[in-house]
Amino acid sequence: MGYTDADWKAINTIRLLAVDATLQANSGHPGAPMGMAPVAHVLFNKFMTFNPQNPDYINRDRFVLSNGHGCMLQYALLHLFGYKLTLDDLKNFRQVDSITPGHPEAHDTPGIEVTTGPLGQGFANAVGLAIAQAHLGAVFNKPGYELFNNHTFVFFGDGCAMEGVASEAASTAGHLQLGNLIAIYDDNHISIDGDTKCAFTEDVLKRFEAYGWHTQHVEDGDHDLDGIEAAIQKAKEVTDKPSVIKLTTTIGFGSKLQGTGGVHGNPLKADDAAQVKTKFGFNPEESFVVPQEVYDQYHKHAAEGAAADQAWNELFKKYQGEHKDLGADLARRLAKKLPEGWEKKLPVYKPTDAAVASRKLSEKVLEDIHDVIPELLSGSADLTGSNNTRWKKAIDFQPPSLGIGEWSGRYLRYGVREHAMGAIMNGLAAYGGLIPAGGTFLNFVSYAAGAVRLSALSHQRVIWVATHDSIGLGEDGPTHQPIETLAHFRALPNVQVWRPADGNETSAAYYNALTATGTPSILALTRQNLPQLENSTIENAIKGGYVAVEAEDAGLTIVSTGSEVGIAIEAVKVLKDQYGITTRVVSLPCWEVFDAQPKEYQLKVFPDGIPTLSVEVMSTLGWSKYSHEQFGLNRFGASGPYKEVYKKFEFTPEGIAKRGKATVDFYQGLKPRSPVNRAFQQLI
Amino acid sequence: MGYTDADWKAINTIRLLAVDATLQANSGHPGAPMGMAPVAHVLFNKFMTFNPQNPDYINRDRFVLSNGHGCMLQYALLHLFGYKLTLDDLKNFRQVDSITPGHPEAHDTPGIEVTTGPLGQGFANAVGLAIAQAHLGAVFNKPGYELFNNHTFVFFGDGCAMEGVASEAASTAGHLQLGNLIAIYDDNHISIDGDTKCAFTEDVLKRFEAYGWHTQHVEDGDHDLDGIEAAIQKAKEVTDKPSVIKLTTTIGFGSKLQGTGGVHGNPLKADDAAQVKTKFGFNPEESFVVPQEVYDQYHKHAAEGAAADQAWNELFKKYQGEHKDLGADLARRLAKKLPEGWEKKLPVYKPTDAAVASRKLSEKVLEDIHDVIPELLSGSADLTGSNNTRWKKAIDFQPPSLGIGEWSGRYLRYGVREHAMGAIMNGLAAYGGLIPAGGTFLNFVSYAAGAVRLSALSHQRVIWVATHDSIGLGEDGPTHQPIETLAHFRALPNVQVWRPADGNETSAAYYNALTATGTPSILALTRQNLPQLENSTIENAIKGGYVAVEAEDAGLTIVSTGSEVGIAIEAVKVLKDQYGITTRVVSLPCWEVFDAQPKEYQLKVFPDGIPTLSVEVMSTLGWSKYSHEQFGLNRFGASGPYKEVYKKFEFTPEGIAKRGKATVDFYQGLKPRSPVNRAFQQLI
Repeated sequence: MGYTDADWKAINTIRLLAVDATLQANSGHPGAPMGMAPVAHVLFNKFMTFNPQNPDYINRDRFVLSNGHGCMLQYALLHLFGYKLTLDDLKNFRQVDSITPGHPEAHDTPGIEVTTGPLGQGFANAVGLAIAQAHLGAVFNKPGYELFNNHTFVFFGDGCAMEGVASEAASTAGHLQLGNLIAIYDDNHISIDGDTKCAFTEDVLKRFEAYGWHTQHVEDGDHDLDGIEAAIQKAKEVTDKPSVIKLTTTIGFGSKLQGTGGVHGNPLKADDAAQVKTKFGFNPEESFVVPQEVYDQYHKHAAEGAAADQAWNELFKKYQGEHKDLGADLARRLAKKLPEGWEKKLPVYKPTDAAVASRKLSEKVLEDIHDVIPELLSGSADLTGSNNTRWKKAIDFQPPSLGIGEWSGRYLRYGVREHAMGAIMNGLAAYGGLIPAGGTFLNFVSYAAGAVRLSALSHQRVIWVATHDSIGLGEDGPTHQPIETLAHFRALPNVQVWRPADGNETSAAYYNALTATGTPSILALTRQNLPQLENSTIENAIKGGYVAVEAEDAGLTIVSTGSEVGIAIEAVKVLKDQYGITTRVVSLPCWEVFDAQPKEYQLKVFPDGIPTLSVEVMSTLGWSKYSHEQFGLNRFGASGPYKEVYKKFEFTPEGIAKRGKATVDFYQGLKPRSPVNRAFQQLI
Repeated sequence: MGYTDADWKAINTIRLLAVDATLQANSGHPGAPMGMAPVAHVLFNKFMTFNPQNPDYINRDRFVLSNGHGCMLQYALLHLFGYKLTLDDLKNFRQVDSITPGHPEAHDTPGIEVTTGPLGQGFANAVGLAIAQAHLGAVFNKPGYELFNNHTFVFFGDGCAMEGVASEAASTAGHLQLGNLIAIYDDNHISIDGDTKCAFTEDVLKRFEAYGWHTQHVEDGDHDLDGIEAAIQKAKEVTDKPSVIKLTTTIGFGSKLQGTGGVHGNPLKADDAAQVKTKFGFNPEESFVVPQEVYDQYHKHAAEGAAADQAWNELFKKYQGEHKDLGADLARRLAKKLPEGWEKKLPVYKPTDAAVASRKLSEKVLEDIHDVIPELLSGSADLTGSNNTRWKKAIDFQPPSLGIGEWSGRYLRYGVREHAMGAIMNGLAAYGGLIPAGGTFLNFVSYAAGAVRLSALSHQRVIWVATHDSIGLGEDGPTHQPIETLAHFRALPNVQVWRPADGNETSAAYYNALTATGTPSILALTRQNLPQLENSTIENAIKGGYVAVEAEDAGLTIVSTGSEVGIAIEAVKVLKDQYGITTRVVSLPCWEVFDAQPKEYQLKVFPDGIPTLSVEVMSTLGWSKYSHEQFGLNRFGASGPYKEVYKKFEFTPEGIAKRGKATVDFYQGLKPRSPVNRAFQQLI
């Protein structure tokens, strides 16, 4: 309350920075920043605590711009508050190698919490950030020590409101009664196709009410700063439900084209920019102007945030004295280190151990390590019993009022919402101090492709427990049997795709997934039992690939993954007995990790001069990177008992041997170079 | 009304067929069929018109089982009504090569409208089926000729209700006021993780109300046949809104485990099966029993459907006399034929024509062919101005009451709902007589991966107009720049992925996409301008690949697609001038189509003995299928003006030439075999 001209000057400064930056780039979205500057000003100055000098201050309030195309709003705020984002950075908006790219990227720009732009993602990330706060507060807060009490605020527009991932996340947040989550819906009636009347006429607030949210409407988001403040204040006071505030605004406020699609995704024309500046009391001849009093006002608030950060540190020091174990645990988590010696807990197998499905091997890992890695939050998209993601004594993360869990619980029931699960996991990982793992069938990780992509782009350590990884799932049939999925995610940069062949490889997959702090992992796991292999050790497998069966003077190398490695090893005998071919077998559970090994090691695994056949019961796409010939499944699968299905497609020792023989014949008299030898290096 | 014991006998027959089939398969989901048998019995016998002897009868009522895991319900119904699905087929449930796979597959089983199982898809398909009816009715119905007046019914469970794709589709259906769509929500409170209370506590009916649906609740779905009938009747009477009926049922009704997760995804135990049979008055010793009076009742209804089909044919014959043009058009569409000579409308370009972005080339195709192919329905996920999917005189498909379009309109405003767009297009294609095309950025086709997969599996001719296909989109940056997307969809069976390099290739892409009646296509199109190439002709490009620059005694072949072909051709001169290397260039706009060419042709394009370098500005994954060395982008892109971005990653004539030289050096003295020569054939 008590807003003055100074506030409007700040608001208009933000608007004009967006006008100038998009004009200078001749590209970008001025409309949303111009429309949302008032609420941003109120929210950041009256409600949010953060420290621009230390963007990682753990108890800071989180802000997510889910309508990420409006990022000039966020860049302007970061600059005004004194984050390491200069006026020159604003002038470099949307230029190569700037820290002000076309959509906000968490990994590259200080103060950006999560990478947004693909619509709906940020909204769902915010749900993850809010879950993280609720959980960490429940675990670490003690009387006199409110270590975690921040709020998560998210702006979203009509585009986000239409996306299914946001719907899924909103339903989840309502179920979870996340009182620390406040969403502000920019109800500006404009999307790229024009008036939202052409496609989006639902009652958004009523929908959120149905999800269990508290809802409010501020009718004049362009002018009513008091109303905005009162609504946010009210939302904070509602602690047993997430809150949404529908804020009716005018997109491109001030432009001659305000309220139309014309200001959504295109810079203002020069004369329009000039008239806006004049209208707002700025010099139409000048660009990128920030009045000193605006800096002063914003820096003052930033200083309060820095003080809060310092106070938190002092409180935490005291806490560490009084709550030694918890204090040490939190300090370790904040330092992004895993507990000393945790890896000794990983299960180790001997070749004589029983055959076990890798989804069960994964369950054993979780059972054995969950105690020693308390930051691990597991969960499943309604496939708990199939994904085997829940350790026996797990407590569900639930609002205590439901009587089926606790805020401190470490098992999340995501519901049948794979896409939201992926995006929520990104939010959990982004918060800090947590490592999310989520289960679904491998085939349905594809539903979450948009979220997986952003895990990779924004360097989030997120683990997918992706069971039922092939036609080996059997009776559920082609609708559930992945063919293209591994190729898809192997083609995505910065993802570890693991397909372990046995127990030690499964332990190795977890070792890598947990220690790769800036990389998401997908663990492709079987429904069917797999034998423990002779040369499989954790040490071998953590290299991503190793020789499972070595042989002198081999005429053929077979390279394979997961459930087919055991069959390939059986094929060795058939190849010898039936065709007189001596065969080596390579197990290659993770391409990305293998690619990072020294060339010398790679050539030991794939020596020159030996024809190589890949064997994997899905798309062969990409396998020529490690093989001369490929045996796979470039068609959809079949519904039936899995052994029958494997037989139908000839994934048997005999079927593999037949193709091994064809490969050897094809390369008769040639000594092919190792597939890992390349003419030039790829750009990285 | 007036239900008797005969009805309950039929209902229990269905239940027990589900019990027996899952028991025999030792796999499957008895719970949903046992719970939904009453509503299925009422719906199919009292409300639906269909002809089991002619499953393609165009004005049949459509039924979609979105909770496809309950498919034994549907298989039992199909059998009882006399579709070509025998008792032996039921006994072969979930066996290899049966027509009763683990989830319903439209392409293989008569009477299955769409392929379901991946949750949420069927619900969204149903919205597409309903749109199709509304549109075709508006186009073809005339006074006295109600050729299209069918309803679409869809069953869905809690899993579908949680999925974002269904939320998107429900919002769309509400907006479109699809009064011909009736959804029945199986409110059984059980999902795989147990009681839905653990993850799904929203008010589903209130949410649908918010979308603009008419809602009803039948509280006793286990017994209240009259209530079910009344609700469906009421829903039919509401013609200005889609209807949802929440039907509270007991999952696994009759089982000792009824109402629990225990009957969801596992067969009943033998003793439980026996007691259910006894309880329902059947012999516990017998399996797969169908009382003759049940067959009689169902066959009687089937005969009424056959009569309706015949009456329709007579009506249509009369119509063809009275409305010659429309009649001929409809007859042609039903015969699944394109209009004679339509392809002459495809734009043709000369090398001297101006450089144009392929998204604009695509717009020109739509502009030129939309008149001659009236079954083409275009649309966009809120990117109309960017995807260029709308011909100038297009009328929107909208409820007339909104004043912004007509039911007969051929342009769909899908909103920012890519996944629903994909699934709705599957429904449109499945209805018959329509060819849907939908636009979004290539990067966001990934949001719809679940739907694209089912287009491919169920052989639907669906066209994705996927613009902004690479880092060439420039300023929007890495969040929007596809890297993995083409690899993903190239790995998916039965998809044509096109990346045309110029105008004639774009016309060829449309030619193939429109004539491939059982295959979806993704057209990857640029934002930036592309020159018209010398040897590009429609005739060349429809083969999927051809020689764009031929040369005698070439030392190198470069193979490329889309926007990089032109740059590769420029590199030819650099390679000659700077390195003395004579280079051929192959344009390969569509791998899938090229793979279908005779081997002889493939070897002409990729002759033996010449090292080959692929050039495509995204993941190299898969390219070794057509090349010895690969130049691509195995990392995320960058935000900036596109020419700067291309330069940063060395996708310039010089950058390509450098790698061409490295390739030639690497193969010095070797005469590598053509990459299309393989040791053995893949299974198909």
